[in-house]
Amino acid sequence: MDTTTGAGPVLAGLMQDDFPLTLAHPLERMRSCFGAREIVTLEDEEGRTARSSYAAVCERVDRLANALRALGVQRGDRVATFAWNSQRHFELYFAVPCAGAVLHTANIRLSAEQILYTLDHAGDRVVFVDASLVETLAQIAPRARTVETWVVMGETADAAALPNAVGYEELLAAQPPACDYPRLDERAAAALCYTSGTTGPPKGVLYSHRSITLHAAGTLMADSMAISSEDRILSVVPMFHVNAWGVPFAAALSGAQLVMPSRFLSPQPLARLIERERCTVMHAVPTLFADLLRHAREAHPDLSSLRNCISGGAAVPKTLMQALEAEHGAHVWQAWGMTETSPVCAVSRPPERLRDTDPERYWELRACAGRIVPLVEARVAGEDGAPLPAGDARAGELQVRGPWVARAYFDPEPDAEERFADDWLRTGDIACLDAGGWLRITDRAKDVIKSGGEWISSVELECELVAHPLVAEAAVVAIPDERWSERPLACIVPAGDEAPDAEELATHLRARVPRWWVPERFVAVDALPHTSTGKLDKKRLRAQLADGTLATRDRVGGAR
Amino acid sequence: MDTTTGAGPVLAGLMQDDFPLTLAHPLERMRSCFGAREIVTLEDEEGRTARSSYAAVCERVDRLANALRALGVQRGDRVATFAWNSQRHFELYFAVPCAGAVLHTANIRLSAEQILYTLDHAGDRVVFVDASLVETLAQIAPRARTVETWVVMGETADAAALPNAVGYEELLAAQPPACDYPRLDERAAAALCYTSGTTGPPKGVLYSHRSITLHAAGTLMADSMAISSEDRILSVVPMFHVNAWGVPFAAALSGAQLVMPSRFLSPQPLARLIERERCTVMHAVPTLFADLLRHAREAHPDLSSLRNCISGGAAVPKTLMQALEAEHGAHVWQAWGMTETSPVCAVSRPPERLRDTDPERYWELRACAGRIVPLVEARVAGEDGAPLPAGDARAGELQVRGPWVARAYFDPEPDAEERFADDWLRTGDIACLDAGGWLRITDRAKDVIKSGGEWISSVELECELVAHPLVAEAAVVAIPDERWSERPLACIVPAGDEAPDAEELATHLRARVPRWWVPERFVAVDALPHTSTGKLDKKRLRAQLADGTLATRDRVGGAR
Repeated sequence: MDTTTGAGPVLAGLMQDDFPLTLAHPLERMRSCFGAREIVTLEDEEGRTARSSYAAVCERVDRLANALRALGVQRGDRVATFAWNSQRHFELYFAVPCAGAVLHTANIRLSAEQILYTLDHAGDRVVFVDASLVETLAQIAPRARTVETWVVMGETADAAALPNAVGYEELLAAQPPACDYPRLDERAAAALCYTSGTTGPPKGVLYSHRSITLHAAGTLMADSMAISSEDRILSVVPMFHVNAWGVPFAAALSGAQLVMPSRFLSPQPLARLIERERCTVMHAVPTLFADLLRHAREAHPDLSSLRNCISGGAAVPKTLMQALEAEHGAHVWQAWGMTETSPVCAVSRPPERLRDTDPERYWELRACAGRIVPLVEARVAGEDGAPLPAGDARAGELQVRGPWVARAYFDPEPDAEERFADDWLRTGDIACLDAGGWLRITDRAKDVIKSGGEWISSVELECELVAHPLVAEAAVVAIPDERWSERPLACIVPAGDEAPDAEELATHLRARVPRWWVPERFVAVDALPHTSTGKLDKKRLRAQLADGTLATRDRVGGAR
Repeated sequence: MDTTTGAGPVLAGLMQDDFPLTLAHPLERMRSCFGAREIVTLEDEEGRTARSSYAAVCERVDRLANALRALGVQRGDRVATFAWNSQRHFELYFAVPCAGAVLHTANIRLSAEQILYTLDHAGDRVVFVDASLVETLAQIAPRARTVETWVVMGETADAAALPNAVGYEELLAAQPPACDYPRLDERAAAALCYTSGTTGPPKGVLYSHRSITLHAAGTLMADSMAISSEDRILSVVPMFHVNAWGVPFAAALSGAQLVMPSRFLSPQPLARLIERERCTVMHAVPTLFADLLRHAREAHPDLSSLRNCISGGAAVPKTLMQALEAEHGAHVWQAWGMTETSPVCAVSRPPERLRDTDPERYWELRACAGRIVPLVEARVAGEDGAPLPAGDARAGELQVRGPWVARAYFDPEPDAEERFADDWLRTGDIACLDAGGWLRITDRAKDVIKSGGEWISSVELECELVAHPLVAEAAVVAIPDERWSERPLACIVPAGDEAPDAEELATHLRARVPRWWVPERFVAVDALPHTSTGKLDKKRLRAQLADGTLATRDRVGGAR
């Protein structure tokens, strides 16, 4: 590669390129410009809230960074959170990376074994856990080899269930309210998030200080999420997902205020928060917007403050977008991204003038995955794998690159799928990219199932099914679902003459995977289609299911 | 300094930090997403325009980059422009840096000697000059030691006045419409701009690919200039000033369209462009907005498309902002910056809700220099030089740092003023910074004079005055001026009994400095105040002028 480091000795190094893009910047900005801003956390079902200023948050971040040092956390060590969205989780988002450690936001929705896998794989030394989630961790804590300290956030009678547990508030109270932070390189690792998006065990995606800072700055752009200092954001996307789309960092950069729903994610408490806190922005998966709209039609909360709803994880039906606009004046903007892309790579904000001049085109653009945002580059690979020329709107695998796109997994398993080639991330999504940079996802990554915005690993379900004595082979594919977008359908080849019954298979799975992964439908077949190299051919299987040519032995029937 | 390069070998290098922030990105974005967008250049006083698509521009940029290579331009070489705002200047903004060279946007408003100084100091090998400006360069061209080729843009009978001159269109026509660009490091130098802001000869500020890309991305933020793909920008600020505030690059990143007024900068042609091209954004100095408003009151052009007017270079009177809003629905947003800061460091966009709830505070914020934008950090040095704590709103010297703030001048003269200390740029402006990050400039840099948004070097005027046989000593200070904000006032100590007359001094200066630098007022005094170290004490001089205690011999009177 023909790379130069500068334009010769005279010209090099005269700009403040050494001003590092680290999270020290948003933290200091929050402190020096937005001390009076507020973060609100919902505390119970009665709607009680805890309120704090950003100035107070900064002081607590300082204490927390000191506490990490006192716990022996070193530069580059991993520190996990196991928590809902709250002020404390927000504090950890800054204290851990600014102290030089790596924030691993463990996914509370994985199975116990998967959680244990990620804690082990990350090598977490300290885990910060919400009191309400202690019970989940208690069963695996004794087997978490690398964890030395469990820090419990909030009051619980269960704290003793964790070995060597300490209280969050006690930890902070013991430290001074000011911290001498290390000066970090912008390429230092800041955060780690596991994706169970494709095949095999969860894979870790590592974010640098630079990638997070640039991504957060990107969310402030007028054609992206356009977060501004005037906003009050209802932060619904769980903070264990892809840094919750950069919103906590964007809030610190812009001075936008934050409203944290904690574990109360049903429409009623969310609507009450919007009404009482006058939220202007929220971000969530489409299912949640649909639920909120249904609830609002019955309970009539005042959602008039809501202007921008950022939706990601799956496509939003046009009718839902139009209803939210008509009934509440709230615009749903679709965004596209994935854990590997920090995540925001595209946002669907078409020119507003099209609304009147060409409403069909306007809504076509509103319904697509969005336009690729500044600083991200995208291309589509044709059938031969070579990139299509710009403006060629044929479908193919979407590839992206940019300063917030991963180029490798963190310490991947030897047999992990290869997603990275020629500096481009192969997204696994089939898409069209038109001459205006507008992205339309035409097909899902080949094997994954996305249910309610969450990935379900078909391979893992297959492994567990095959582990059942009466199952010889299994293939799990997505079927459309009105409420969840997709649900898994399991096809099994019975090991003997008799197919196991659906309830038995479901019970078997419930003990091994997250409850919501368990398929509602099971189908027994004589044989599954295979590729020439002997791998399951799910493409053919889906086609056979669709046109009814799959030779089913009998329907095992619904399990729930 | 305690700096780490990563979090250990396992964690380093897993993000696309090697995706470089270079101008290849906006160029490719313009090509792949915004090919159908338009750039319009005004061609004559009758209002004729040249129109081109971004797709055609990209092809011409490719040809131009090839042409530079054909002219022997190497990585890091400097290539100058001497031009008004036009499509061709826009093409040079991309072709020169993307080819690996450094774009020196020479300031056409400097004196011939200053222009020669900057061409020499930069070491420009090629100069691209507008046909209408050939005459200005012809007088110095024979003495420009480093320039090998002069490229004339447009038709002129004078081209032969430049040695070794070639035509821009001929140059492009000879090259293929595609270019294999070098892959550059983001820290490579991309552009060079000279500031005559303070003392001594003009000083060069070098911008890297990274600093320009990040600054342009910053201008897209909702709380900054908020440039979006829907905008049509009347690009008034001359492109020889600080990369014209990043707007050309912001247009490429966002897909905003551009309208270039060329040399037609009076209110009538600008108003006609706004009306015909339905411009939504313009950026200019306050004087120009005042002129435009006056013109509109007489000629009644339709300025209703104009939404955002970005103003910089001097403070905008509140009444002017209010009149533009009331009469045309156009908002003037003040911005603060300098050549050394790329320039945008602050933009005055207060929360719109304050308009109704606290109009006094709203207009106070609208009238200040703005809030420090994301990714820039600011502090104020107290009287002892130590930074004031955040939230301490006392006045002191403003200091800034950030990824688009210079930290040194390009090859400075040995006696150049020291502006850079501890990674911070000492701006020379006296300012207050409140707990909300709002910046109020309370006093001007100690010695400079800013007239119509342009710097006038008092020291240079003093040098030239003292060169007159009848002048013993001279001090030039700013006096308030309704139209130009400030004008210079020259105080002289006559060499003999008789003071020289004002007209003689003005004639003397006109031959040596730009015409508009020449003071309207001259005052003869017996002695000037000095500091303990023998330097002119202009602070005391200004105070004496203000309270009438300066012992004047007689008023030399107005020169024009």
